[in-house]
Amino acid sequence: MTFDYFFKPRAVAVIGASNDPLKLGYEVFKNLKKYKAGKVYPVNVKDEEVQGVRAYRNVKDIPDEVDLAVIVVPKRFVRQTVIDCGEKGVKGIILITAGFGEVGPEGKKEERQLVEIARKYGMRLVGPNCVGIMNTQDDMNATFVMDAKKGNIAFISQSGALGAGIIYKTVKEGIGFSKFVSIGNMADVDFSEFMEYLADTGEDKAIALYIEGLKDGRRFMEVAKRVTRKKPVIVLKAGKSESGARAASSHTGSLAGSWRIYEAAFKQSGVIVAETIDDMLSMARAFTQPLPKGKRVAIMTNAGGPGVLTADAIDRLGLNLADLKPGTIEELRSFLPPMAAVKNPVDMIASARGEDYYRTAKLLLEDPNVDMLISICVVPTFAGMTPTEHAEGVIKAVKEVNNGKPVLGLFMAGYVSEKAKEVLEANGIPSYERPEDVAAGAHALVESAKARGVLKEE
Amino acid sequence: MTFDYFFKPRAVAVIGASNDPLKLGYEVFKNLKKYKAGKVYPVNVKDEEVQGVRAYRNVKDIPDEVDLAVIVVPKRFVRQTVIDCGEKGVKGIILITAGFGEVGPEGKKEERQLVEIARKYGMRLVGPNCVGIMNTQDDMNATFVMDAKKGNIAFISQSGALGAGIIYKTVKEGIGFSKFVSIGNMADVDFSEFMEYLADTGEDKAIALYIEGLKDGRRFMEVAKRVTRKKPVIVLKAGKSESGARAASSHTGSLAGSWRIYEAAFKQSGVIVAETIDDMLSMARAFTQPLPKGKRVAIMTNAGGPGVLTADAIDRLGLNLADLKPGTIEELRSFLPPMAAVKNPVDMIASARGEDYYRTAKLLLEDPNVDMLISICVVPTFAGMTPTEHAEGVIKAVKEVNNGKPVLGLFMAGYVSEKAKEVLEANGIPSYERPEDVAAGAHALVESAKARGVLKEE
Repeated sequence: MTFDYFFKPRAVAVIGASNDPLKLGYEVFKNLKKYKAGKVYPVNVKDEEVQGVRAYRNVKDIPDEVDLAVIVVPKRFVRQTVIDCGEKGVKGIILITAGFGEVGPEGKKEERQLVEIARKYGMRLVGPNCVGIMNTQDDMNATFVMDAKKGNIAFISQSGALGAGIIYKTVKEGIGFSKFVSIGNMADVDFSEFMEYLADTGEDKAIALYIEGLKDGRRFMEVAKRVTRKKPVIVLKAGKSESGARAASSHTGSLAGSWRIYEAAFKQSGVIVAETIDDMLSMARAFTQPLPKGKRVAIMTNAGGPGVLTADAIDRLGLNLADLKPGTIEELRSFLPPMAAVKNPVDMIASARGEDYYRTAKLLLEDPNVDMLISICVVPTFAGMTPTEHAEGVIKAVKEVNNGKPVLGLFMAGYVSEKAKEVLEANGIPSYERPEDVAAGAHALVESAKARGVLKEE
Repeated sequence: MTFDYFFKPRAVAVIGASNDPLKLGYEVFKNLKKYKAGKVYPVNVKDEEVQGVRAYRNVKDIPDEVDLAVIVVPKRFVRQTVIDCGEKGVKGIILITAGFGEVGPEGKKEERQLVEIARKYGMRLVGPNCVGIMNTQDDMNATFVMDAKKGNIAFISQSGALGAGIIYKTVKEGIGFSKFVSIGNMADVDFSEFMEYLADTGEDKAIALYIEGLKDGRRFMEVAKRVTRKKPVIVLKAGKSESGARAASSHTGSLAGSWRIYEAAFKQSGVIVAETIDDMLSMARAFTQPLPKGKRVAIMTNAGGPGVLTADAIDRLGLNLADLKPGTIEELRSFLPPMAAVKNPVDMIASARGEDYYRTAKLLLEDPNVDMLISICVVPTFAGMTPTEHAEGVIKAVKEVNNGKPVLGLFMAGYVSEKAKEVLEANGIPSYERPEDVAAGAHALVESAKARGVLKEE
């Protein structure tokens, strides 16, 4: 099974592409025009041109093979449009138009009929009632929301609006995605199939799912069990509380189900459970790093407080603070100032320069009692010192030691540390802004290492 | 007891003010020059001018009464400087210089001697080993870090670096403070005294404390018990885990103590416990709103997912989703589209305009079954719609109903919703970006209402 036509189509038609900036079809076509890996054709029943591009009255009029169709026409035209797509030989449909299964039983019936038509022609359908699909690698934005930042997370959201909100939020926060799928009502393609497809891609380092309710829970868990042996799957499940579950079921029309049952099943399938949106993103971001062989964490910092909060956070998630070897402690003592704390967390104090970050990171990574390193930097107190030199010190150490232990950064200084964060991330080291987020990242690495058999549960 | 001389001094001397941009005394004087409510004098043993201002060789040479001295001289000059301040008649000292109690027993002894000298002259001392104090109302920044955004949170941090990191972070996030105190080693003035002072100020709506360890826990709890009857006290305690506690005690030299004991004592004293930095800030920000009379929350939203996540989050914190009156549900049904969910959470769906926010907010606030309202807005899907009109709809409803029920906003769209957040906040309605944060705010309002006897525990 391949869904390449959803993410790397050779040619896409936007049916309902519009010149009217107040219509969704305007935004979708505007976004898709930037697509680099294939052709994009607007389909519009009235206008001869859409946004300066020659338009077609019907998808069937396009003088080219079309493998993907994005449909944003009013609901009453959807059925015929799907038939036209079938006759054209389209392979995949992204149906953005709403008003189907989420409205009631009648809409659900119509939705099923659309799927039957699609199946008849051998087409697969994402949606209806969705925001669309992005593949940032090829600048494909087949949605009506802004471009996501490029990165390595494949994110599938059952709530279009929440998914869009997360795109906007992460653009601001500098968190990147490889793919984004607003899965809508899941009339045809569901989480399981996308998971299976994403398991074998190179650019997607982690699969993050926002789930309100599953249609076929058993199948999901079976697929997840296979996929998590290859790649991490992180789930944020809405409707954990009774009132939330009631609200979720009225929202998506799918049964939210009891959280206890879900939780047990997720755990059994190797799925990592996130508590919040930020938790989910923090976990998914960690996988540009290798998997740890154990769960003993070393923390280095230039300020005590953040070190303590991070120690608390990793403890809460069942990770351990590494007991450093006496030799490591001795060597740290030899160059760090007397006020420094040389036990884990290693507090190099405010005077620490890039050189101290380098030497300390090197010693900690070389210590056989350490499985993973968290490097913390708050605002450097002294003028002339920048968080960037700290980031560079860590990178130098990682390159020299090069022994496959994961390293995560925590830079807690808002704008001041943005450059340093970028430096770390350009080197594949995820850099967080909050102790609980970096701890979530470390936790996810450990959980995935367990699911993939790299780390044995003691 | 008054600490006005720490926050609104008539005249401040910066002893160790410097022309060298690489020194802390440079930053402190640069920041303090902007102080609006009194005079600022630089003291420098060598230079006749500091940053263009006439300097004095000794604090005693200043031809004016000086009530506050900020000391940033090297450690070996601190003792004599404190004596000079005493002879000058200074009332308060902020001792930024480090190398005392945090270094070991010898430093602790020196620190105690400084306090004895200060006491002899009737002076009070904040620090040593601190970042300084800010009072944003009067543009007083007696620290070496950037100006905090103005707001209503009084924040006291036992970790200077963490405190500074939080200032930087909140400037980026748009969260404001009325006061910031880096309390350092607490050789003299401690949390208890500041709490007592802050209990009676008008501009400080909430007291937020970052605590690593207390020197006199019993006294703290006694004071907290009194203060929380007047004003909320929110505590983030570091060193909750065993490893964190060990790290904390090595960092501050004070005993971190067992978290269980702290937790019970905080609870008994009406102190609200925060789990993370963002939790603490989210709680403290809520208090520009009135206290609720109960814990039944109504949620209104333009997208299902965020409503569900928020319902989950309030449930986790022991709040209830309000059961709307049948009359309210009927009226909502009369103007919301058929696809809208009219039970709590009320999902007005993506087509909701400012007018829908207004009418829905009005009905929910008027419902006697509702104690508190959370208004959620994700990215408006339709072109020509802005989150700002949604914010304005809510504000109009609050003004019209005007029945003292608290309202909190949740705007989940990064840059897109920044303007709307500002509109809400200019009207005293705190506006959050994450479901768990708005829930924390609601939770804090309820907890404070209990501590102040406004809300009876059922």
